[in-house]
Amino acid sequence: MRDMYRETKIKDVKITGGLLYEKRKVAAEKTVPYIKRALNNEIEGIQASGAFENFRAAAGESGKNFFGLVSQDSDLFKWMEAASLALQFERDEREIQKADAGGKSEALEGSIKKDLDEAVGLLAKAQQKNGYLNTYYILNGLKDRWHYLKESCQLYCAGHLMEAAVSNYEVTGETKLLDVAQKYADCIGRAFGTEPGKIRGYDGHAEIEIGLYRLYGATRINRYRKLADFFVEERGQRPCFFATEKRNGDVSDNLVYELEEADYRHSQSHMPVREQKEAVGHAVKAMYFYTAAAEKAGLNGDEELFQTLKALWDSVTKEKMYLTGAIGASEHGESFSYPFDLPPDLMYGETCASIGLFLFAYRMLLTDVDSCYGDVMERSLYNGILAGMSENGTEFFYTNALEIDPEKCEKRRDHMHQQAERQPWFECPCCPPNIARLLLGLNRYIYTASEECLNIHLFAESRFDAEGWTAEMKTKYPENGYIKLRILKSTRGKGRVKLRIPQWCSGITYIVNGMAVSPLTEKGYAVFLTGEEETMDIEISMPMEPEKIYADARVKDLVGKAAVMRGPVVYCAEEADNGEPAVLFWKDGGRMTWEEPLADEPYAYERIITEGWRLSSGEPGLYTTQPPRFEETRITLVPYYRWNNRGKGAMRVFLNTLFPAAVPGTVDRITGGKV
Amino acid sequence: MRDMYRETKIKDVKITGGLLYEKRKVAAEKTVPYIKRALNNEIEGIQASGAFENFRAAAGESGKNFFGLVSQDSDLFKWMEAASLALQFERDEREIQKADAGGKSEALEGSIKKDLDEAVGLLAKAQQKNGYLNTYYILNGLKDRWHYLKESCQLYCAGHLMEAAVSNYEVTGETKLLDVAQKYADCIGRAFGTEPGKIRGYDGHAEIEIGLYRLYGATRINRYRKLADFFVEERGQRPCFFATEKRNGDVSDNLVYELEEADYRHSQSHMPVREQKEAVGHAVKAMYFYTAAAEKAGLNGDEELFQTLKALWDSVTKEKMYLTGAIGASEHGESFSYPFDLPPDLMYGETCASIGLFLFAYRMLLTDVDSCYGDVMERSLYNGILAGMSENGTEFFYTNALEIDPEKCEKRRDHMHQQAERQPWFECPCCPPNIARLLLGLNRYIYTASEECLNIHLFAESRFDAEGWTAEMKTKYPENGYIKLRILKSTRGKGRVKLRIPQWCSGITYIVNGMAVSPLTEKGYAVFLTGEEETMDIEISMPMEPEKIYADARVKDLVGKAAVMRGPVVYCAEEADNGEPAVLFWKDGGRMTWEEPLADEPYAYERIITEGWRLSSGEPGLYTTQPPRFEETRITLVPYYRWNNRGKGAMRVFLNTLFPAAVPGTVDRITGGKV
Repeated sequence: MRDMYRETKIKDVKITGGLLYEKRKVAAEKTVPYIKRALNNEIEGIQASGAFENFRAAAGESGKNFFGLVSQDSDLFKWMEAASLALQFERDEREIQKADAGGKSEALEGSIKKDLDEAVGLLAKAQQKNGYLNTYYILNGLKDRWHYLKESCQLYCAGHLMEAAVSNYEVTGETKLLDVAQKYADCIGRAFGTEPGKIRGYDGHAEIEIGLYRLYGATRINRYRKLADFFVEERGQRPCFFATEKRNGDVSDNLVYELEEADYRHSQSHMPVREQKEAVGHAVKAMYFYTAAAEKAGLNGDEELFQTLKALWDSVTKEKMYLTGAIGASEHGESFSYPFDLPPDLMYGETCASIGLFLFAYRMLLTDVDSCYGDVMERSLYNGILAGMSENGTEFFYTNALEIDPEKCEKRRDHMHQQAERQPWFECPCCPPNIARLLLGLNRYIYTASEECLNIHLFAESRFDAEGWTAEMKTKYPENGYIKLRILKSTRGKGRVKLRIPQWCSGITYIVNGMAVSPLTEKGYAVFLTGEEETMDIEISMPMEPEKIYADARVKDLVGKAAVMRGPVVYCAEEADNGEPAVLFWKDGGRMTWEEPLADEPYAYERIITEGWRLSSGEPGLYTTQPPRFEETRITLVPYYRWNNRGKGAMRVFLNTLFPAAVPGTVDRITGGKV
Repeated sequence: MRDMYRETKIKDVKITGGLLYEKRKVAAEKTVPYIKRALNNEIEGIQASGAFENFRAAAGESGKNFFGLVSQDSDLFKWMEAASLALQFERDEREIQKADAGGKSEALEGSIKKDLDEAVGLLAKAQQKNGYLNTYYILNGLKDRWHYLKESCQLYCAGHLMEAAVSNYEVTGETKLLDVAQKYADCIGRAFGTEPGKIRGYDGHAEIEIGLYRLYGATRINRYRKLADFFVEERGQRPCFFATEKRNGDVSDNLVYELEEADYRHSQSHMPVREQKEAVGHAVKAMYFYTAAAEKAGLNGDEELFQTLKALWDSVTKEKMYLTGAIGASEHGESFSYPFDLPPDLMYGETCASIGLFLFAYRMLLTDVDSCYGDVMERSLYNGILAGMSENGTEFFYTNALEIDPEKCEKRRDHMHQQAERQPWFECPCCPPNIARLLLGLNRYIYTASEECLNIHLFAESRFDAEGWTAEMKTKYPENGYIKLRILKSTRGKGRVKLRIPQWCSGITYIVNGMAVSPLTEKGYAVFLTGEEETMDIEISMPMEPEKIYADARVKDLVGKAAVMRGPVVYCAEEADNGEPAVLFWKDGGRMTWEEPLADEPYAYERIITEGWRLSSGEPGLYTTQPPRFEETRITLVPYYRWNNRGKGAMRVFLNTLFPAAVPGTVDRITGGKV
């Protein structure tokens, strides 16, 4: 029998301090207002967006033509979800700081709420009588609607509308946006399905499935779940729907991938989900599809489907994932490459793909409380996801390579898909609102609970109150690994508290109500029993030292290289601290010292200082028999997620290693590594 | 005052043995007949060619439409040059082996001569009354002739016709093809030039300039030289000719580079040659243009132009050249990248570009007897060029990377321009006939001479007889560095013999007429004086040991890596001998042993055996804190030019190095390298 947890509600958890709190604060106070202005075309010098204008036109408030990519409605919807969640952040803020409530915070909510209400109003006005709501087709006379689903993004956009509506409803309790989403879902339900006269098709970019399951979760209306089930199972049925569907010329011109027309792997449509064993194709599409399929497996207790998802999970996380939780090793199609092909420089690593991996992991976790999911959640969160946004919250990475050489990005065509600096906006601005909604929704992913069990998956200063459990977590994680928990079970009977033991951690210790204990573990979770109305205090100490990390030898591009992690955080060498990182070598076995961040000093990053070697820059000619000379150097590392906040420069996560001139058996002893 | 040598005539030198002899023999006996069949569409299963058929149609012998790329005439012309030179090879063969002359060799000449005469006949018949001769335009009604020179390849093809004609005339003494070329040159001369009514334009792909200079060399007709001078100086004049020329839609569809329309660097047309300082753009185009410009500088004693070419030479050879003499670090536009950007895997390294570099070097050498040119000639010849053709002479590399991973080439779009195996043919088959004509014309490049001076640039078993000098060179070079020379000066007065001292060589010794001597050196050449009617015997011993080679630290992709050379030959590690080369590490300071090839055993290559380390293929998970384990291994290296003659597999020239855990100053001592 599998675990079956429901997604934790945004209101049941407050994040009250620490890194995640700071990131959410920036997202609420800076990013959400910034994205609103970008989508409303109020910011000069960035790529134009028609997101708001298209809805004004569709609502009859202007006579403008559609502007932008066909996927553009989704930008607005993702922003609406982020903005809704930002309202919750503000309410939590006021609650936390009751003393000085009102003032700035109030004014801010006022502004976001006003923008949000405007958007909701536009959507309601633009929605067609039958519920249809996509500005590209409305403004083009609804011609060719439901044609060429492979690239038209209609259902993809609809899915994001549903997600926005559910979050908006959860936070505000208002149903206006939820009504719009339900009307559209019903419209889609009348068009798609296995019944005669309906389209047996699906979108080239999975997302509608997630939206429908969330709509089901909020409304408990079964037809949304059934429709999502249909989309999950229909994808990849033979013959491939995309091979036969009628084309829409305009749309295909709008989204050009140089892909083989018949390469349905790109949209995971090459075979039915139950036959899939390897993660392939567009990494974001894959994550969204697997997330939805995992939801289906969980909702129906479908063990066969769960095992399929577990195989795909293993394919992603054991063979195709970067150290930072980035996925998508190939720029071509923004897609997965073959197993162990993980070049640190040519990679794609879209921010949205790391977000998708986080969501997929959480969905698996609801059915299977195994630490492998939480491990990947924190890997992608503290690295691949957080790196996607600048410290000021208004600049973004679309791609996230582990190695950036600005000259290569500028001059080599095969590196031009990478940004050497975060950008204020993109022609396809999927990542900025996605990272905002992920950060503002983080509360959902820390705890899950039933009456019998409280699970703690992530570590953040926070409070949880639901399902008869109250928990308070005090920690500076990931700055250090010390956590204090106070847990109260107010419902009847004994209960279990499960705490994820991070993969990176060894030597974890627990003190429960003042007593050192050695708890039993279950699938990577430490298990504690507690009684009714009993307060349990758990102190957890996880030693957190910098460690060298080596990739599997099958990752050919990382042979001879090592990276450094401390806890869940991947570090990197930036040019700002080190000069050109390409010529740095680790001194293997060299001492690594972590330095606490200095408060209040700008760019006073937490750092790891270590000894290393630098290849001397003598100029002996292009090729020489003279062996390279090395000089001792100090290597300064900063968290990967904080890189590129000090201007443009080169960066590397993996550096060369000056391995000792080893004889077999001595390597481990010399380097002092764990065997 | 500069040196001013004329190109050595093909008939003045016989290559009588050794590696270059073997390669020429394969080219004459296998490659030339094979290419004829390919161009005549007689080989099933390879890309179709219309080269012969187009001329039959243009000659009125068939009603077929034009087939193939617009550059296709040049394939036939390059084959005609190679075939003409093959006739010379056969004559030399008969002379060398007078005892068993006739038989097979006779029959072979018969066959090539017959094919060649058929082609010459077709050209003469297809040529228009005014001399025009390009099948693409003839078969398309001559419409839009001289339009869109940027991509139409008309003048490029014409240049190759002239080169073929000159070689054909030199070998056969017949003038039929030379007449065709002269008529076409005159036609071009009426169309192009600075005079009113003429086109002040040039071809997007330099080559006409070389052809015209060679036509001048053979005929001493000054108008060909003047026309070539015009093309050299006109390229890059402002405003750029290509910005304003009238388009030919058909042609532009035929040759698609995804290049910025205004990126005239691709064809070296971004500025006049005299302003150029950095080698940029398409590597083959650049080499052909620089070769022609160097000819102009030499012919006119133009020191300013020579200095320009020297700067471009330095740009190529000191900042943009691979260890193998490959050039073109970027697939995009088959072009140069920025200085020191020399990735061993993503590179292009077209065979034709190495050939072009060889030709550019030789042209510089005629004006400036400096060993830097001969060094690059032998670097590209023994590595980048010879690698372009299989041992059986019928399979070819278009690109020549220093690192091939067949799975990457097959599955990663950014590596798909590379071939993991030599190919029987290409849609654009420029390289096969180019390597054939280069190999068969090698005789020209070994010696240059005036009455006063005999220069020896390359080392090969050979005889030279011209300008009053007779020289006989006995050597197994590059198998070893021992050379015996017997030189006779039959003209009046004292003379000088100059011998290039290769860059790779240290400890060279000379014995002249039995006496050890220490000659003076001049620009990297050892100089010997000899008298009239005096026979001089020179024994040269160049110690030839395998040596590790390191790239400049600015080549970021090669930091921490080393390659092995022995003499001028670059070695590589093939999967066939070593398993996956990506996990191999040099044991720095490890002994390297060269093993002589075993005669008569197939694939009994000369090899270098050395000690190394192999990263153990334990499977500890994708990322681990466990330092890698190494096991001792034997690394077997074979000459790069011989790789991929034993089936598909991975190959690397540069391997990782397990540098000693060095402290400053000890590195050199430990590794025993030269400082």
